[in-house]
Amino acid sequence: MNNQKLKVGVIQQSCNNKQQDNHQSTEKQIRKLADDGVELILLQELHSGLYFCQTENTDHFDQAETLDGPSAVFFSQLAFELNIVLVISIFEKRSAGLYHNTALVIDKQQGVVGKYRKMHIPDDPGFYEKFYFTPGDHQDPFLPIQTSVGKLGVLICWDQWYPEAARLMALKGAEILLYPTAIGWDLNDDKQEQQRQLNAWKIIQQSHAVANGIVVVVANRVGFEKSEAALNDNDGISFWGNSFICGPQGELLVQADDNSKMTISCEIDINKSEQVRRIWPFLRDRRIDAYDDLSKRFRD
Amino acid sequence: MNNQKLKVGVIQQSCNNKQQDNHQSTEKQIRKLADDGVELILLQELHSGLYFCQTENTDHFDQAETLDGPSAVFFSQLAFELNIVLVISIFEKRSAGLYHNTALVIDKQQGVVGKYRKMHIPDDPGFYEKFYFTPGDHQDPFLPIQTSVGKLGVLICWDQWYPEAARLMALKGAEILLYPTAIGWDLNDDKQEQQRQLNAWKIIQQSHAVANGIVVVVANRVGFEKSEAALNDNDGISFWGNSFICGPQGELLVQADDNSKMTISCEIDINKSEQVRRIWPFLRDRRIDAYDDLSKRFRD
Repeated sequence: MNNQKLKVGVIQQSCNNKQQDNHQSTEKQIRKLADDGVELILLQELHSGLYFCQTENTDHFDQAETLDGPSAVFFSQLAFELNIVLVISIFEKRSAGLYHNTALVIDKQQGVVGKYRKMHIPDDPGFYEKFYFTPGDHQDPFLPIQTSVGKLGVLICWDQWYPEAARLMALKGAEILLYPTAIGWDLNDDKQEQQRQLNAWKIIQQSHAVANGIVVVVANRVGFEKSEAALNDNDGISFWGNSFICGPQGELLVQADDNSKMTISCEIDINKSEQVRRIWPFLRDRRIDAYDDLSKRFRD
Repeated sequence: MNNQKLKVGVIQQSCNNKQQDNHQSTEKQIRKLADDGVELILLQELHSGLYFCQTENTDHFDQAETLDGPSAVFFSQLAFELNIVLVISIFEKRSAGLYHNTALVIDKQQGVVGKYRKMHIPDDPGFYEKFYFTPGDHQDPFLPIQTSVGKLGVLICWDQWYPEAARLMALKGAEILLYPTAIGWDLNDDKQEQQRQLNAWKIIQQSHAVANGIVVVVANRVGFEKSEAALNDNDGISFWGNSFICGPQGELLVQADDNSKMTISCEIDINKSEQVRRIWPFLRDRRIDAYDDLSKRFRD
């Protein structure tokens, strides 16, 4: 078996409410990673601004942009110049009154080569995403995107809790799973609850690596963003960072901390999946004759 | 919400080739746990003997027993006397030439109230289970078993690697997932590989707790069993123990070590699932309109 080495990087940022500021600081980190030989870079969810879904406010739709809007243009130029693959995240305006939470894959000289519209949309206090984002309606759902560095299974944040999504990407030949996310603590929760939540979030994403014998790359936001509806100083989200890259047995290769703007990167070997799946051939033994009820809401 | 407390125990054992010996030592541990107020006890996979699947040997079919054979009788008497729920594991003879790897659920005074025949059957060097076990052919697959202490989603060993199995149990109302297993290290692997395998095994099972907001109970075998086909002293399986119980966020509640015959137990609250699923309502947002391909072998 041949090795197929690839240097992968992740940018973990804090954002403000000015797209240009955010793009500039992202650019600086992208250039640094590219200088280090990183060929594939994942940005966090909605990295062009604040996480605006903490409240339901129609004004925030002003921030949405089209698939060929300023973010796509800006990062395509950068990918072109640096000859890298970038996975970016935008608040997409598809039409008046129709918006998505969308990831774009930009491949070196080729520009945008694919998009993924978030399929699973959360809605709970502080994360009012169902107000803003129509769930993805891809004709053929959970399709990995072919790039010059491999077939990328891009999923977004809340998707991370669904083994179904990871599996469908793997079954379609994804070679790397990538999760741009924006998740954090409610500082009104106690420390034990915060720790349980962080651990659960790491476990579920590492488990997609294990179940599918595949590399997983996760970019999360960092820093505290106060809610527009805050009644006290703690009301907001303390984004917990912890961006990471793990190998096809779920083993952590590199991991960010919970409070720094930083980058992480490491070399991965896409062909390691072949080796891991030979010793643990889970795909061989799936009981596809017995899985029909996975398409049910509940088996009642 | 009411609490619904339940004390759960797990027995992590080494075995020899004499069923009576093994049953006696299991009985001793069961009595100890029952004395401590444990109401639900999980035994490890194939706890009546050695893990015989290290080679393919037709003589081993002599060890198989019927659903009402000596193991069912022995443990039913014990469950009756101690007024507890027991999940046991047998090498089941269903007919001449037709054998299963089967778990039985024994409920206090009621005797055996349900069975589960392992659905996903491994086959790799040292684990030649496809030779011995016909995969489960339940009419309605992945059905939890109702008992006086709750609805038990019993799965067995290799099943643990499949998020599909855990999900189907949860969708049918399982309140606890239970995994009797027999997994260990090949001492010819290096320490890093051994650690990756153990961690992967913990992660994937904790992830079923996370994905489904449900308690997971795992019993694993411990100790080294030399292969009948050993060419050197290392040829065999060093079962890695690490039996554990985790809560519905995947948080470890109690965990055994990797080399001791021991019991673990703790109190769980089945209603915690309700609370956890309210803050992380993953079942609400499954994209059942987009999951059809989970019933395909591969999406090619």
